[in-house]
Amino acid sequence: MTATTHAAPGEKTPSQRRVDAFAFDVIGRINQAIVDHDMTYDEYDAVKQWLIRVGEAGEWPLVLDVWFEHTVEELAARSRHGSQGTILGPYYLPDAPELPAQTALPMRSDEPGDRLVLRGQVRSLDGTPLPGATLDMWQAGADGYYSGFHPSTPEGNLRGRVRTGEEGRFEVQTVVPGPYTIPIEGPCGELCRAAGWSPWRPGHLHLIVSAQGHVPLTTQLYFEGEEYLDNDVASAVKPELVLSPAEEPGGSDRRRFSESYDFVLEPARS
Amino acid sequence: MTATTHAAPGEKTPSQRRVDAFAFDVIGRINQAIVDHDMTYDEYDAVKQWLIRVGEAGEWPLVLDVWFEHTVEELAARSRHGSQGTILGPYYLPDAPELPAQTALPMRSDEPGDRLVLRGQVRSLDGTPLPGATLDMWQAGADGYYSGFHPSTPEGNLRGRVRTGEEGRFEVQTVVPGPYTIPIEGPCGELCRAAGWSPWRPGHLHLIVSAQGHVPLTTQLYFEGEEYLDNDVASAVKPELVLSPAEEPGGSDRRRFSESYDFVLEPARS
Repeated sequence: MTATTHAAPGEKTPSQRRVDAFAFDVIGRINQAIVDHDMTYDEYDAVKQWLIRVGEAGEWPLVLDVWFEHTVEELAARSRHGSQGTILGPYYLPDAPELPAQTALPMRSDEPGDRLVLRGQVRSLDGTPLPGATLDMWQAGADGYYSGFHPSTPEGNLRGRVRTGEEGRFEVQTVVPGPYTIPIEGPCGELCRAAGWSPWRPGHLHLIVSAQGHVPLTTQLYFEGEEYLDNDVASAVKPELVLSPAEEPGGSDRRRFSESYDFVLEPARS
Repeated sequence: MTATTHAAPGEKTPSQRRVDAFAFDVIGRINQAIVDHDMTYDEYDAVKQWLIRVGEAGEWPLVLDVWFEHTVEELAARSRHGSQGTILGPYYLPDAPELPAQTALPMRSDEPGDRLVLRGQVRSLDGTPLPGATLDMWQAGADGYYSGFHPSTPEGNLRGRVRTGEEGRFEVQTVVPGPYTIPIEGPCGELCRAAGWSPWRPGHLHLIVSAQGHVPLTTQLYFEGEEYLDNDVASAVKPELVLSPAEEPGGSDRRRFSESYDFVLEPARS
């Protein structure tokens, strides 16, 4: 009942064998799920319309990054040494401004949210400090919105490429990012509602840490005590990535936190 | 590694439990396939771009009807009595012209291809003939193209709704449909090439047979000896649906075939 693909005549190339093996297997597994759940024609038609709407809404990157990228990332991580990484997600934008080692991310003068200072060191796997490394950082504000993706947030807000200084050190002032839902107006939100799934992600900082001669590290940092740490719709939280920032005294209208976190990069294989 | 969805707070409705069970299972199975095949990030990105292109090309109905509908149809068939059915496919158009019981499908004066006369009877499950039943028929020409989907074929060509006459009988003149490939210029064709899969379907007649008080039957009829009977990209051939038309003597420039096929419809449940 689930044999669904047929060979064209002739020998397959190695690339064709790879695509054949994966696509044949995935199609077969989905057909088996259709059988196991005894899917009706009405349900089949509903799935077809949903898939069409995902394309119309431009949500294929969101579908993949929320429900599948974590697995691809975990596979890639198995052969990587150095600090733990996690998914890239759909909100990265290239060409953020370059910033010095001691800096603040660009933000509104009245940027809402608790203040956070993140400091640390970038090192190679053997412990060598890496001055001139780059921390390409992006994050949602306390309101959970990303610049470049939400009209209420100024362009470039809370995005920057921080260059490490002496001894590979950095110190970045920013705000504690808020939790947010994946977009809920489109087909992904529709699926969450239809299935009774939480659309929330815990607040997090995104980073791509890179240095000459090293494998770039794509990661995220989370915050202890956050409501959605155990319930991340994107399944991207790892225990090594959860910060416990210390509250600093003397905050006036806003609470102030600070935390240290070091990044260890693996040398590139030649 | 493959637990990928999280419950929103509160009790789920029955509908949410159904969507949750299916979608959670499918997402889990796909993630498991990603693990089992050790998918790389480059491959993940290639899949993402392909899914985006499927939407842009309007090929979601094609993807589903070629690789998945046969399973949904086989499930539906398990609880249906009467003649065997198969998939609808993406080329049905409603509102074809009504035709009498003895008729020819609309075709070009110089329509290419061997001639075929299909005659038979529509009956209810208990053997009662069904006059006034409808055979909504559509098919590709000998060139493998469908009207309404290919610019070279006149609108409405080889489509018609035949009304059965006395004793539920019909006799339709048409041409033997040619085999064809699913569209190969778009992402589905790209997948077939990338995986080394045959994109061919054996030639076939499509029918939806309906009568008052009965469950409509969606089916296809194939032809013995056709090249792609055992290698149908849509996995929709069933042995009960394969005709062996007899060649009639006296064909001049074109060969002439005829075949009888009866359709048995199940009474609708009240």
